[in-house]
Amino acid sequence: MTLTPTPADKFSFGLWTIGYTGADPFGGPTRKDLDVVRGVEKLAEAGAWGLTFHDDDLFAFGSTDAERQHQIDRLKQAMADTGIVVPMVTTNLFSAPVFKDGGFTSNDRAVRRFALRKVLRNIDLAAELGATTFVMWGGREGAEYDTAKDVQAALQRYREAVNLLSEYVVDRGYDMRFAIEPKPNEPRGDILLPTLGHALAFIETLERPELVGLNPEVGHEQMAGLNFTAGVAQALDAGKLFHIDLNGQRSIKYDQDLVFGHGDVQNAFSLVDLLENGGPGGGPSYEGPRHFDYKPSRTEDDQGIWDSVAANMRTYLLLKERAAAFRADPEVQEALATAKVAELREPTLDAGEGYEQLLADRSAYEDFDAEAYFHGHGFGFVRLQQLMIEHLMGARG
Amino acid sequence: MTLTPTPADKFSFGLWTIGYTGADPFGGPTRKDLDVVRGVEKLAEAGAWGLTFHDDDLFAFGSTDAERQHQIDRLKQAMADTGIVVPMVTTNLFSAPVFKDGGFTSNDRAVRRFALRKVLRNIDLAAELGATTFVMWGGREGAEYDTAKDVQAALQRYREAVNLLSEYVVDRGYDMRFAIEPKPNEPRGDILLPTLGHALAFIETLERPELVGLNPEVGHEQMAGLNFTAGVAQALDAGKLFHIDLNGQRSIKYDQDLVFGHGDVQNAFSLVDLLENGGPGGGPSYEGPRHFDYKPSRTEDDQGIWDSVAANMRTYLLLKERAAAFRADPEVQEALATAKVAELREPTLDAGEGYEQLLADRSAYEDFDAEAYFHGHGFGFVRLQQLMIEHLMGARG
Amino acid sequence: MTLTPTPADKFSFGLWTIGYTGADPFGGPTRKDLDVVRGVEKLAEAGAWGLTFHDDDLFAFGSTDAERQHQIDRLKQAMADTGIVVPMVTTNLFSAPVFKDGGFTSNDRAVRRFALRKVLRNIDLAAELGATTFVMWGGREGAEYDTAKDVQAALQRYREAVNLLSEYVVDRGYDMRFAIEPKPNEPRGDILLPTLGHALAFIETLERPELVGLNPEVGHEQMAGLNFTAGVAQALDAGKLFHIDLNGQRSIKYDQDLVFGHGDVQNAFSLVDLLENGGPGGGPSYEGPRHFDYKPSRTEDDQGIWDSVAANMRTYLLLKERAAAFRADPEVQEALATAKVAELREPTLDAGEGYEQLLADRSAYEDFDAEAYFHGHGFGFVRLQQLMIEHLMGARG
Amino acid sequence: MTLTPTPADKFSFGLWTIGYTGADPFGGPTRKDLDVVRGVEKLAEAGAWGLTFHDDDLFAFGSTDAERQHQIDRLKQAMADTGIVVPMVTTNLFSAPVFKDGGFTSNDRAVRRFALRKVLRNIDLAAELGATTFVMWGGREGAEYDTAKDVQAALQRYREAVNLLSEYVVDRGYDMRFAIEPKPNEPRGDILLPTLGHALAFIETLERPELVGLNPEVGHEQMAGLNFTAGVAQALDAGKLFHIDLNGQRSIKYDQDLVFGHGDVQNAFSLVDLLENGGPGGGPSYEGPRHFDYKPSRTEDDQGIWDSVAANMRTYLLLKERAAAFRADPEVQEALATAKVAELREPTLDAGEGYEQLLADRSAYEDFDAEAYFHGHGFGFVRLQQLMIEHLMGARG
Repeated sequence: MTLTPTPADKFSFGLWTIGYTGADPFGGPTRKDLDVVRGVEKLAEAGAWGLTFHDDDLFAFGSTDAERQHQIDRLKQAMADTGIVVPMVTTNLFSAPVFKDGGFTSNDRAVRRFALRKVLRNIDLAAELGATTFVMWGGREGAEYDTAKDVQAALQRYREAVNLLSEYVVDRGYDMRFAIEPKPNEPRGDILLPTLGHALAFIETLERPELVGLNPEVGHEQMAGLNFTAGVAQALDAGKLFHIDLNGQRSIKYDQDLVFGHGDVQNAFSLVDLLENGGPGGGPSYEGPRHFDYKPSRTEDDQGIWDSVAANMRTYLLLKERAAAFRADPEVQEALATAKVAELREPTLDAGEGYEQLLADRSAYEDFDAEAYFHGHGFGFVRLQQLMIEHLMGARG
Repeated sequence: MTLTPTPADKFSFGLWTIGYTGADPFGGPTRKDLDVVRGVEKLAEAGAWGLTFHDDDLFAFGSTDAERQHQIDRLKQAMADTGIVVPMVTTNLFSAPVFKDGGFTSNDRAVRRFALRKVLRNIDLAAELGATTFVMWGGREGAEYDTAKDVQAALQRYREAVNLLSEYVVDRGYDMRFAIEPKPNEPRGDILLPTLGHALAFIETLERPELVGLNPEVGHEQMAGLNFTAGVAQALDAGKLFHIDLNGQRSIKYDQDLVFGHGDVQNAFSLVDLLENGGPGGGPSYEGPRHFDYKPSRTEDDQGIWDSVAANMRTYLLLKERAAAFRADPEVQEALATAKVAELREPTLDAGEGYEQLLADRSAYEDFDAEAYFHGHGFGFVRLQQLMIEHLMGARG
Repeated sequence: MTLTPTPADKFSFGLWTIGYTGADPFGGPTRKDLDVVRGVEKLAEAGAWGLTFHDDDLFAFGSTDAERQHQIDRLKQAMADTGIVVPMVTTNLFSAPVFKDGGFTSNDRAVRRFALRKVLRNIDLAAELGATTFVMWGGREGAEYDTAKDVQAALQRYREAVNLLSEYVVDRGYDMRFAIEPKPNEPRGDILLPTLGHALAFIETLERPELVGLNPEVGHEQMAGLNFTAGVAQALDAGKLFHIDLNGQRSIKYDQDLVFGHGDVQNAFSLVDLLENGGPGGGPSYEGPRHFDYKPSRTEDDQGIWDSVAANMRTYLLLKERAAAFRADPEVQEALATAKVAELREPTLDAGEGYEQLLADRSAYEDFDAEAYFHGHGFGFVRLQQLMIEHLMGARG
Repeated sequence: MTLTPTPADKFSFGLWTIGYTGADPFGGPTRKDLDVVRGVEKLAEAGAWGLTFHDDDLFAFGSTDAERQHQIDRLKQAMADTGIVVPMVTTNLFSAPVFKDGGFTSNDRAVRRFALRKVLRNIDLAAELGATTFVMWGGREGAEYDTAKDVQAALQRYREAVNLLSEYVVDRGYDMRFAIEPKPNEPRGDILLPTLGHALAFIETLERPELVGLNPEVGHEQMAGLNFTAGVAQALDAGKLFHIDLNGQRSIKYDQDLVFGHGDVQNAFSLVDLLENGGPGGGPSYEGPRHFDYKPSRTEDDQGIWDSVAANMRTYLLLKERAAAFRADPEVQEALATAKVAELREPTLDAGEGYEQLLADRSAYEDFDAEAYFHGHGFGFVRLQQLMIEHLMGARG
């Protein structure tokens, strides 16, 4: 196994990540704007595979058609020159003042119509560039105050928007699916579809649910104190992991967007293990882009951008290596057996068994020795966890 | 409007709430066990309508059939004597050592079978007592360590269990629906279906989704930093608010189970407003029990139990009164109009409009004045919020 | 009691609060810059008493001496015209790129020297304007990564800086004290002196601790899940509540800077009660400015700024009114007595008693009936809390 | 370096940790009580050095003198047989019903007197067993409701108690110091002295501050979202790290008490680096016991207890090894230099320099090039962090 990234690893980066200038709520930029062509070239040099962007990353909000086209052409040329692809595009419905109460769910209907038009235009561009995933992060869809937003109505409007966009994509014959990116808060006090679970549930209410999946982000779920790997497993169970945003977050606080692995490295281990190796029952589970949505820290200069690009990919590959070693370790296999991890794949009912048979099975209840679980039948979970930590630390050769 | 509770208010309490003896992770009980008959009588006196219970609340885990029946008979007599009903029953798959790794999703298959049997038995009892809702809180379904649980498998087993129970209820002809109660953590490090959103999404993967809904709890969602009212609105949008657990929580920490309104009273206001009055578009939105799932503080003696019972109901009724006054206030109506809250109910598209027409509407994009939203088109949300706070504080007549 | 603010209420506002243009991590400004003269005039109209500012609020970082003086002169004229005072001034060591790793504790020594010079200059200005409090919020003093900062060294440098500034103020004969404003995180991953406790402890290590106190902020402590009122009580116990920042925060998340009372209104009640009435033992406890450090929501236009200014003051006055009624209510007095709240003021030892006497008092131990606290000796805290909630809600006349 | 623990490593365990039976708020014990003699023997076998305990761990609350003495004698014999020492003892003022509102700060004065007596008695026992540290965790000193506790009075009573105990220890000639253990919440809604900062500040208000220091616990600070290593550095700066509690916690939630390193392993790395190697400026920084205060998970049987004991020590030793390699790596040294980490140890002022000289130094301000920090003077923190992660993962040989 190698720790040098290649396009086969499918590592992609947002233009807004390498282009982050360092502006935050308490200070302005500490770095210059990054030109997209230089960004593409540097990513290619670093071994990345793809670039992603919001429309407003490539050409400023309010650009003329000519300005817009000029930037698109420059990007296309850079792609051709480097082999970098654009697997995903997304739309910015959160930065401009017009979106201050959201895009698809702004209380202001005229804003909602404008938002739809902006997105339709960007879907065309996404298709033109060959993107097969269109991500929707509704960062301004939400409220600070409970009385300011009719949440049921907001869900209706969000649904109306996604239904329209889905119809458009189908009618245009685009090979494109949508991926909703949940977040609990920031920049709004509370955001609509705050977790991956809420978004999954919403998708089932759409007209074309098959076209819509998730783009969960490590830090966003962790901002709600949730286990990201467990959430991704539920998304996989639902067949809805269409894309993924990798980064780092340390505990419940503002959205940190650290390098992947620079946050909860233990959960990063189990995530890479799941993405690469599937559940303990086996099988690859995610084939899509490994997309980094992070911010090079504001303390860094230009060199720090490219150091952080390399760090994201290297940490991913290291974790992949560690996870493979974990799986291959006979002592781990033995500990997994003791912990009965694989036994959970076995149906609880026997083949063909229904409740009548279960009710008739005295061994299941009347003769079952529940007391034996007191001071007995330990699961050995702590030992298994220790083996994981030691593999994470490279301490088991 | 009156602040004296009556059965028409549909206030119900868990037997485990009034029976909470004060044991917590750092100390044993500070109060004696509560006899169910006394509990029923006191609730009736206080103006409550219903009692709910886990099997193990009424008769200890491992009771003989005779012990069990004795307690059931005593409860029935108390119900007959007082008029108290049992609208909901739930099962304890979390206290006994046998459930240390969960019930429906224990890694140990024999435990899963035992759990199913225990629940089937309790469903019969629930039906016998007239309960129409069966709540499932899977507090032990989860893990502390990422490698200890195959989450995809756990979801399969949970689904298998709920499908079986649903079939059973249908076949038996019981007038009963299931309500899943999510919680992010505690007593497990991470719990399966950690939020109302995750549970909603899970329900859509069941064989009989129409039989299964939610029992969201105020504090459980707030333990993940989520807005409870917004979550309940999504549950209502999905037609899945089958039951509700009212209590209080102060910020992200252990599960406090305070009296309703003793936590985030602002969010409690918007919740009661939603439950009683529906969204700003109007209409009652929840007809079910107003169920209190709280704990009388460990510092209290017996008197404190009944003071806290009264406090839950009185605060609810006070909030209901405040919410009605908020709705009726002309200045609030005017502020809501300024904030365009009702405008969100209007479809974004005109009647019959599709994307072709939208694309042709120059007023929606080409001629739309996005710049006017800079230093203009304010939503007045802060003023609206201030009116809410003043109504909450009873400061506007 | 009146709800109309007057200068006697000592309400002050930061120029950066009313001047907040709406820029946040995900979007640019939604409002124009506010001219300081207009700000002063509008505050005076609204009944406020004071204005506070960072140097960079009044004149941009890098201003020429002439530009700087022009703005100072305009402020002075506005103060003279309106009666608005400047009770506090603070320095911005966090916005400019030079401070990207902090000011007093930047790893870069040249930056630290520059920071000291910037602050010394601003102290002169503060003294010239009559400010008696100089606030220091070290928002960039911190790190994202544990290896990037030698925290012990950082404390030494912070100490060196405050010692120098203290000496300067004493030598210049300024009537001025310093107030440190703690914050746990944002914009840095972890900030030095993260809570008011850490800052209090640090102050005791200074050369002139008597010159240095705290400026705690509601939201900053709540971002760590801490009880703000309890923290303020400890600051008062230490004689260190030199200034206070009032605002609103909802749970543990990014720094929301909502209007005071628009966050945890229950804790806001107890805070105002403490500030106005002191502990249950009585006596005024805080005489300084009631300073609002909040942000008018980004959704608002100019009108929203002034609506939010009014809302801050009105909510404070309403809470003051409610707290007074709470104190005066005989039923509250009785509940406080049952809860033995005042008994905590009584020393545990008798007058003149030492451990020898205590050891000889058999009633204290050998004959003490600890068992009586089981199912007895309830404190009635829940009833007391309910009375508080009802007073907060204006439900007890 | 070896990964096999020996007494020279000074690893100690609480009797309540290995004796934890698995009871939690939602379930009873899953394991039998542990006899103290067996505990001591097993710890000795595992390579541990010390045992610590609360009085109530060794002999139940309410034991007769004979019962108490019998247990003490058995412990002493086990110590003699194994070489295990008792470096620290602590007192339980939180489990029995009498302490439901706290011990030293219960509103009930009789309880406070009883608490003092209980502690005095246990101090005698601690001295008799050779313990030199007496830990005080005031887990019940707090409140759920703001009106229920006069926090200023509570601080006075806590102070009165610690002053009395300090006097006692001095008069008795005991070689013993006190260590306060802070915690933000659980089992109380808010606990007095919620963070190590608050406790540090409190210590400075005591009559004999030199006798009182801290016993910070990893998970307790992380429950407030605080950086534990940074807090420990402040404690060291104040000369107050008297003892330490090592364990694991994952994000802000209930107190998990996981094995050390099974929580935030990244912060565990920097902690061990600090404890073993001091700040980047060098020098050992902590010589005291490495004390594990954790809970073997409730899912485990007896074997799991001893597996978890071993895991705590092994992870500590692994981290120690990794930290040493990190320090020795020339590339790390170079990255530290780029990041100017050591430069923070240099005073900001020149030797003998005061503010007059600083004000006269034009290079510090007038001629300082602040603009050069825009798109320049990067700190390279991300690269340094990546080197740390790779050392943590054992990926740099």
